[in-house]
Amino acid sequence: MLQAALRSGAAHRASVFELFARRLPDGRRYGVVAGTGRFLEALEDFRFGDAEIEDLRSRKVVDDATLEWLASYRFSGDIWGYAEGEAYFPGSPILVVESSFAEGVILETLALSMFNHDSAIASAASRMTAAAGDRPCIEMGSRRTHEMAAVAAARAAYIAGFATTSNLEAGRRFGVPTAGTSAHAFTLLHDDEREAFQAQVDCLGPGTTLLVDTYDVRAAVEIAVEVAGTGLGGVRLDSGDLLVQAGEVREQLDALGATQTRIVVTSDLDEYAIAALQAGPVDSYGVGTQLVTGSGAPTAGMVYKLVARADDSGQMVGVAKASKDKTSIGGRKYAVRRLDASGRAEAEVIGIGERPESDANDRELLTPLVRGGEVIGATTLEQARERHLASRTELPRRAVQLSRGEPAIPTAYVDDQP
Amino acid sequence: MLQAALRSGAAHRASVFELFARRLPDGRRYGVVAGTGRFLEALEDFRFGDAEIEDLRSRKVVDDATLEWLASYRFSGDIWGYAEGEAYFPGSPILVVESSFAEGVILETLALSMFNHDSAIASAASRMTAAAGDRPCIEMGSRRTHEMAAVAAARAAYIAGFATTSNLEAGRRFGVPTAGTSAHAFTLLHDDEREAFQAQVDCLGPGTTLLVDTYDVRAAVEIAVEVAGTGLGGVRLDSGDLLVQAGEVREQLDALGATQTRIVVTSDLDEYAIAALQAGPVDSYGVGTQLVTGSGAPTAGMVYKLVARADDSGQMVGVAKASKDKTSIGGRKYAVRRLDASGRAEAEVIGIGERPESDANDRELLTPLVRGGEVIGATTLEQARERHLASRTELPRRAVQLSRGEPAIPTAYVDDQP
Repeated sequence: MLQAALRSGAAHRASVFELFARRLPDGRRYGVVAGTGRFLEALEDFRFGDAEIEDLRSRKVVDDATLEWLASYRFSGDIWGYAEGEAYFPGSPILVVESSFAEGVILETLALSMFNHDSAIASAASRMTAAAGDRPCIEMGSRRTHEMAAVAAARAAYIAGFATTSNLEAGRRFGVPTAGTSAHAFTLLHDDEREAFQAQVDCLGPGTTLLVDTYDVRAAVEIAVEVAGTGLGGVRLDSGDLLVQAGEVREQLDALGATQTRIVVTSDLDEYAIAALQAGPVDSYGVGTQLVTGSGAPTAGMVYKLVARADDSGQMVGVAKASKDKTSIGGRKYAVRRLDASGRAEAEVIGIGERPESDANDRELLTPLVRGGEVIGATTLEQARERHLASRTELPRRAVQLSRGEPAIPTAYVDDQP
Repeated sequence: MLQAALRSGAAHRASVFELFARRLPDGRRYGVVAGTGRFLEALEDFRFGDAEIEDLRSRKVVDDATLEWLASYRFSGDIWGYAEGEAYFPGSPILVVESSFAEGVILETLALSMFNHDSAIASAASRMTAAAGDRPCIEMGSRRTHEMAAVAAARAAYIAGFATTSNLEAGRRFGVPTAGTSAHAFTLLHDDEREAFQAQVDCLGPGTTLLVDTYDVRAAVEIAVEVAGTGLGGVRLDSGDLLVQAGEVREQLDALGATQTRIVVTSDLDEYAIAALQAGPVDSYGVGTQLVTGSGAPTAGMVYKLVARADDSGQMVGVAKASKDKTSIGGRKYAVRRLDASGRAEAEVIGIGERPESDANDRELLTPLVRGGEVIGATTLEQARERHLASRTELPRRAVQLSRGEPAIPTAYVDDQP
């Protein structure tokens, strides 16, 4: 495609690409934008190196002119986008790429991979942290997803309110706070549970969290407090009826005098399980599989479409595919979140062209990310986390209902005709 | 956990870890082992570098003794496993790691991430290629998953019978054959469809595949044959009722004399859609989202458990967690696929300890992969692909039914007591 466009000359036409989701995953009330930070970092380094060029040459994938173009590739256009952490809705123009056709089209897979993955995780994570209220959620899903996806998933979960991750590389690369627990293997390694607990407490102090469901929970809690004392930091439950067990363990701990010992639960939790466990004396949730697989929606299903391009006279023309089942709307968009008098979100307002003057209480959604190829809109991970919390809080309360429903606010297209 | 085990000395106990799936994804008849090749490659390079050690030190994640141990880490044990591409069933000991506790436990996340991801993709891919029969499947899902997971997904799909991938990096790194098509953006970039088709044919020749559903399919097919001639390679349909349209387009192409022009269909296909399209004149399937998300099962849900370890006297002892809802069976396993007289698989036979002499028609499943830290069992991607086809063909026919059901063969545990 690139080669044919370079050959015909159309590759150099000024173009606008838009990254958006046609719909939210079935029944979801909002989505969460994530991946922006990783995308901007990747964009700065996005080059075709000698190894890649040589491979394309030897396998005759493209012709020499295209290889030459790829070898000197450097994005030189402008990019606008929703801030990382922002809520999004069907049609939200999450990323707007303005460049030549060739420069923009080559970013398609990079951008979509990052936004589709990270936004899927952040969207699921946000439902979990909303369900958990002020109880912290720990990300523990690395082992259930691709080894590099795991690092990105830990980052996305943190943006959406997770407190910590067990992925140390996410700590190193992105500064996500890390936490860990011991596994059943540690208990089984030792001759008995007491010996295992003693080894852990000797090494990590009584403030550690002991895993108490390897054999018999009641016996394990008893031993745990004997070994660590009433200052035991926490116990972890990883099987069985967690709600019932948490209640029993809380009673037992309190009776033993370990009233400050925290109860951590894990075991295939999702947002629904967390919501159900809110009724029990649980102090924190460890979430794995369901987080890294997007809790039923492992991809955000975003697409990257050409929405405008120059004609021969240099005039920009809105373009869109005509198919009935895959609607796109041509033209370069603006987008605002319309708020009511109390600051609560009412609608996602999207229009084409220049945003008209308005008395409405509108919050601008597109921020400048890249200008002339240079990244100007990078934010910190903490800023993305804050943006997410503010954005979620601004939505109508129905947004955080877990039951299936319509998007929390409607998407309103403003007609571009006066 | 590692630090406590190093401190207590238990870290050096000889241990056996096993990687297995407790169950198949809901209703699936078999799973496909994938990730072995990537795991063996990663194992050879698996070290903790200066940057990682310094990060763990500065964030005080572990103590100095543990840092020292990590800095000199090099796996020195033995690993056995199912051949890549092999079918697996609940309880199949897909990987058996024999080493010290410390050396083996540190591989847990690496091994699980790779096997859980790659096996999930290969398991879904195998159902798709089984449904497609001799019609080729093209992997096109990169944009719907994490950018590095995409490369691994293309590899896993190829093992499970996909013909090609659109991921060029999978071609470069793993030798997966690559193929691509043009997108709607290419058509929209040009002033009209004829101009776009002409540009593509001028550049890539009439053997190329033209995307014909940007505006009106019937008109586009007409133009496509006018531009490329009756030697047009193919047309792609990406929206609408594909079965009906494929029939109409085939008739139209035949009427125009383009009887050899192939019809490629894409558009959120999964194994069920492919099965339904087998009734139509479709030549190949492009599969994206549903492939890279495992078609409803984005992780294989495998676990990595300590199943045996030495006691103080050096004697190996089988160990297992006692919880009711998460069964594990202690002890180092052997595994064979029991075949009937005609060579058809009958059962997955798993036992503990030495495999007894038997007259049964049994196929050994555990192959040596690593000995004394050295990789000895690497296979080529082609071998994995052949292994998969042979393994799937050996299963009872019900294995490739798409309807939900029980595993195609039962898992039979042989009692280790004489």
